[in-house]
Amino acid sequence: MMNDILIRNVRPFGGEATDLYILNGRFADGHSESAAVEIDGSDHVALPGLVEAHTHLDKTLIGMDWFENHVGPTRNDRILADRQAKRELGIDARRQSARQILQTLALGVLHIRSHVDVDTEIGISNIEGVIETREAFRDLVDVQIVAFPQSGMLVREGTLELMEAALKAGADIVGGIDPASIDRNPVHHLDAIFGLAERYGKPIDIHLHEPGELGAFCLELIVERTRALSMQGKVMVSHAYCLGMLDAPRQRALVDALAAERIAVMTVGSPSGPALPLRAMRQAGIVLASGSDGIQGTWEPWGNGDMLERAKYLAQRNGMTNDADLAEMARICTFGSAEGIALADYGLSSGCHGDVVLVPARTLAEAVALTPQRRTVIRRGRVVVRDGVPSDALPHIG
Amino acid sequence: MMNDILIRNVRPFGGEATDLYILNGRFADGHSESAAVEIDGSDHVALPGLVEAHTHLDKTLIGMDWFENHVGPTRNDRILADRQAKRELGIDARRQSARQILQTLALGVLHIRSHVDVDTEIGISNIEGVIETREAFRDLVDVQIVAFPQSGMLVREGTLELMEAALKAGADIVGGIDPASIDRNPVHHLDAIFGLAERYGKPIDIHLHEPGELGAFCLELIVERTRALSMQGKVMVSHAYCLGMLDAPRQRALVDALAAERIAVMTVGSPSGPALPLRAMRQAGIVLASGSDGIQGTWEPWGNGDMLERAKYLAQRNGMTNDADLAEMARICTFGSAEGIALADYGLSSGCHGDVVLVPARTLAEAVALTPQRRTVIRRGRVVVRDGVPSDALPHIG
Repeated sequence: MMNDILIRNVRPFGGEATDLYILNGRFADGHSESAAVEIDGSDHVALPGLVEAHTHLDKTLIGMDWFENHVGPTRNDRILADRQAKRELGIDARRQSARQILQTLALGVLHIRSHVDVDTEIGISNIEGVIETREAFRDLVDVQIVAFPQSGMLVREGTLELMEAALKAGADIVGGIDPASIDRNPVHHLDAIFGLAERYGKPIDIHLHEPGELGAFCLELIVERTRALSMQGKVMVSHAYCLGMLDAPRQRALVDALAAERIAVMTVGSPSGPALPLRAMRQAGIVLASGSDGIQGTWEPWGNGDMLERAKYLAQRNGMTNDADLAEMARICTFGSAEGIALADYGLSSGCHGDVVLVPARTLAEAVALTPQRRTVIRRGRVVVRDGVPSDALPHIG
Repeated sequence: MMNDILIRNVRPFGGEATDLYILNGRFADGHSESAAVEIDGSDHVALPGLVEAHTHLDKTLIGMDWFENHVGPTRNDRILADRQAKRELGIDARRQSARQILQTLALGVLHIRSHVDVDTEIGISNIEGVIETREAFRDLVDVQIVAFPQSGMLVREGTLELMEAALKAGADIVGGIDPASIDRNPVHHLDAIFGLAERYGKPIDIHLHEPGELGAFCLELIVERTRALSMQGKVMVSHAYCLGMLDAPRQRALVDALAAERIAVMTVGSPSGPALPLRAMRQAGIVLASGSDGIQGTWEPWGNGDMLERAKYLAQRNGMTNDADLAEMARICTFGSAEGIALADYGLSSGCHGDVVLVPARTLAEAVALTPQRRTVIRRGRVVVRDGVPSDALPHIG
């Protein structure tokens, strides 16, 4: 029997209805008359696998006791509370990352980049835990692991060495965080992480919350190093709030500089953070990615990891209500993020991996606006979720 | 048989678990040993009926064809598109308001204040349609109707007379909209609506999107008229974005002036609009209410009318993640809105109407953060929704 699947009469990315055919795990042209599996895709929009380009798999509290959040308002309050929670709540990175992956798989998230904490209290145990989960879910979801110095790097001696150990253990990407306001020395911080990236041939993904002109200066330092080390297309800046806090000419110059070095930007569309100039960034050719950030953790009590809902948040934060704008936000949460985290063979075209999410909606804009939950999710030609119900064959988590 | 209902072991507004007893449609002390209906409320938080203090029941497109939104970005673009849609899509205010009411009833919304359009094209037909629905749903949901001059009042001759006709037909509240930027004459606009309110003995609820100092000036005019006509406690300002756009001393002065005249403020926590200083407003004693605004209409394609999710939006817009803050946001969407729209006998105390929503959550903060959908909704001691499933006895809408 052919290992094939035919989806009839579905609207790829909201376009004209057509049939989609997957053979041996990849999209193929034409199709046999009798596929092993046939799905009626009418009244559905087909999206490539949703891409979670920025989350913290190791720190979700899904399925654990309710965490009573009494944490103060500053980033440092939250970092301290976060480290304390890891100590006191016994957050098992292996188990918790698996829980989040299963929850978001049901919504069609098939590709995840996760920042994973490395610090002098837990060492690289969270990295090891998420690596275990990555192996267990290898057939279902792609997981990229960023070695992330959440508590600071230079300011906590030994952290840089742990990041190197994380890379040796299997982390894929060098992380970083606020080189000025947290690590107190932007040049040393950036030199250190670009150095690691160069030595290990890894990309970079840096958390940059630095505000206004401080953030702009840090962006310039990142641009300079990306150019000097020819790391174009291998650097992502996450959050980059400063881009939403500058006057127009300054903003423009930075946007152009990021575009010139093909530095991608990840934004979650935070309702309380500065809104990034998404339209101008896109027009300048910057690759835009998005993510959920933490889900149900000590930082934020909410979050479901639905990257279609994330597209809605992006639209809402930017005051967009047009169908065309909503489609663009859906593009960020699929193709944009896929490019940002360098996924291969991504999309709905012939030859791409046979990953697809069928969303019951008349148009792509409706899918974004109403985020219907009864989705069908296909991974490499295998139906893993049908009308919102996960396959019995999926792993169960203790 | 006693017409009574006993909810065992539930957490009222997230407090200590207790039993709640409803007899003849009202909360009562103690309880009989065998109530007609008993519900196990363990692992649930009990909230009084959720309050939708600001929506547009007559303009939702729920259940209609998908509206392709190509509307321009300005408020005037949207007003024009809105009026065109009413002409061309044949939006039936009676049917559409019923659809929204049924959708939000399933989530526990038992009290609604709806602005309803009055203009020289449709006259008061939308008012009449929503009044029909109000009568049909009288036993299920309280509906207050604001005669709302969406397209302007003074600038469209005949509109003021139509608003008077709306009040005679059964509208409960005098509406208004941007007296300067839309109606071009703040003094005449406000004198006209305060005049109507005085003649008919009705409260006022005015949409105020006016920015910065223009909005501040309009607020001052509203304060002056509220004082002059002794309308303390009978005026609500909806949106009041200007309060989020002023420097601290100016903001403070206006907040104090609003508090002194007991003028309530309704905010939806718009992710793209200015964030109001909720903490300072509450500390000053201002009654804070919230609402969904339009749901799935020509203005905004999204929205489910869930006032528990609205509490989450309020928290997110204001960067709040603490359990205590989330509880405060839930308070706005229940008790605050109830006070703002002057509901009688509201709450979970003995003597109050027997309206309650049981949300499967361990704490009130969890209810806000995760907005569980399988709720049980009780109206005047009658179970109308059980674990997310509406009673068969509810009306069905064509």
